[in-house]
Amino acid sequence: MIKQKRTVFYLSDRTGITAETLGHSLLTQFDGIEWEKINAPFLDDMTKAHALVERINRAAERDGHRPLVFSTLLKPDILELIRQANCRVYDFFETFISSIEQELQQPFARIAGRSHGVQHHLSYFKRIAAVNYVLAHDDGVNPKNFMEADIILIGVSRAGKTPTCLYLALQYGIAAANYPLTQEDMPALQLPQVLESVTSKLFGLTLSAAQLHFIRQERRPNSQYASLAQCQQEIQWQESLFQLFNIPYLDTTHTSIEEISAIILDRSGLKRQLYGYEKARRSSTEPH
Amino acid sequence: MIKQKRTVFYLSDRTGITAETLGHSLLTQFDGIEWEKINAPFLDDMTKAHALVERINRAAERDGHRPLVFSTLLKPDILELIRQANCRVYDFFETFISSIEQELQQPFARIAGRSHGVQHHLSYFKRIAAVNYVLAHDDGVNPKNFMEADIILIGVSRAGKTPTCLYLALQYGIAAANYPLTQEDMPALQLPQVLESVTSKLFGLTLSAAQLHFIRQERRPNSQYASLAQCQQEIQWQESLFQLFNIPYLDTTHTSIEEISAIILDRSGLKRQLYGYEKARRSSTEPH
Repeated sequence: MIKQKRTVFYLSDRTGITAETLGHSLLTQFDGIEWEKINAPFLDDMTKAHALVERINRAAERDGHRPLVFSTLLKPDILELIRQANCRVYDFFETFISSIEQELQQPFARIAGRSHGVQHHLSYFKRIAAVNYVLAHDDGVNPKNFMEADIILIGVSRAGKTPTCLYLALQYGIAAANYPLTQEDMPALQLPQVLESVTSKLFGLTLSAAQLHFIRQERRPNSQYASLAQCQQEIQWQESLFQLFNIPYLDTTHTSIEEISAIILDRSGLKRQLYGYEKARRSSTEPH
Repeated sequence: MIKQKRTVFYLSDRTGITAETLGHSLLTQFDGIEWEKINAPFLDDMTKAHALVERINRAAERDGHRPLVFSTLLKPDILELIRQANCRVYDFFETFISSIEQELQQPFARIAGRSHGVQHHLSYFKRIAAVNYVLAHDDGVNPKNFMEADIILIGVSRAGKTPTCLYLALQYGIAAANYPLTQEDMPALQLPQVLESVTSKLFGLTLSAAQLHFIRQERRPNSQYASLAQCQQEIQWQESLFQLFNIPYLDTTHTSIEEISAIILDRSGLKRQLYGYEKARRSSTEPH
């Protein structure tokens, strides 16, 4: 099947993260279309807006379909100009804000950049502190400080521990350590000794042997380390270990880092430290 | 002024990242309200939904105002049940999807988890490769590989280089190196020698001397390194250096990591490597 080609624009006064998140989650619900995605962040003056109108019109002509435009623009004159282009505009603020104004019984501030601005000095520092914690406790380094970790991810080499720890730190301000399970631990079905006093903080990452093989091949092609047999053996061993010691774990084979992180938060009941969630509760639907 | 207290719920079949990003963007436009924020990701069965209805109703009673509920729920029966609670529901799919269906002339898939799912194996590996690149080229390590960097952030100690590099890697798949400007370089107004062959990749991070002082105090209280005079001198020196060598730079004092990253992408014209942006263009509004 030949895919239909269309263009989508993400427009914003500031970073464009919100416009893109919205559009992306809607458009992934439609198959069979090849999207050309154009980000136009910091669209904050009429000169840029005029240039963009031209660009939208050219895309419409080339595609034979008018582009979709997702916007979080706050300046009415810029939005008005964009509407004159050959496109379908979905403006996020316009759609929701008046109903929320009504609900909250106050007008909105119309100030750009609030959403991804620095909310609190405190959260900035929590985030940096969490990143520093991850870097200082990556791959089994400094296990003497594991008591201070919010969570400790464990798994065999290349199971995705480090990127997940970094995402937990950057996105949620979580101090995440990680510790590798190695072949040397395998003969005995036991946890590495340094983990014995912190079992309640452990969370396992696993994946299919085939994917682990594929990932390790990239790193050390045709090594014993990367062989499918070795990967199968290690995965089987670590999953037995997780089960034996009652360690919660997740198969990440078909899961993105965002999802892995959200699932870890949900299952472990960890409190998020970021985005002004000073009063954040457990990320769960349980009443308490 | 005593702040009004209200509760907001973010509901999703999956991670809740979209619901939260969108709701957060809208609510930051309203002042004077203290929000209790409750995340309910993975809300995928009726038992959880019933428990949540109870929780919403209790919050309404306690606050004296009905909660706001931002949702990306795809299951109609769950959404229907939530609507019966004492709350105001803003559902992102419902709001936009039928208009997009009309525009694209096809029905949507109604499959949860697409937005943050693994789109392509390729982007997963790009992201991991970018994170590995950052970790292997942090704080001036391995400058011999700087030619392979997409961008090289420079600045004095504690200017925010490492977290920004990690965010660029995780969010956009950018291979970002960073190199510290140190006191030893100061007497001569020159770039460190290892940077001379890669000047086109350089991007400077600066901040106010007061904030640098504050950050360094956390690390080494009352040291020469943390003194306000030292911070003032280093900041003045590095900004002169950036100007002299025509290196683009950004004052990050009032800027979040998300914004810093988006601005760097925009100004440097770097191509994003992630989220299926195989055809991504320069993140700018310039036609080309």
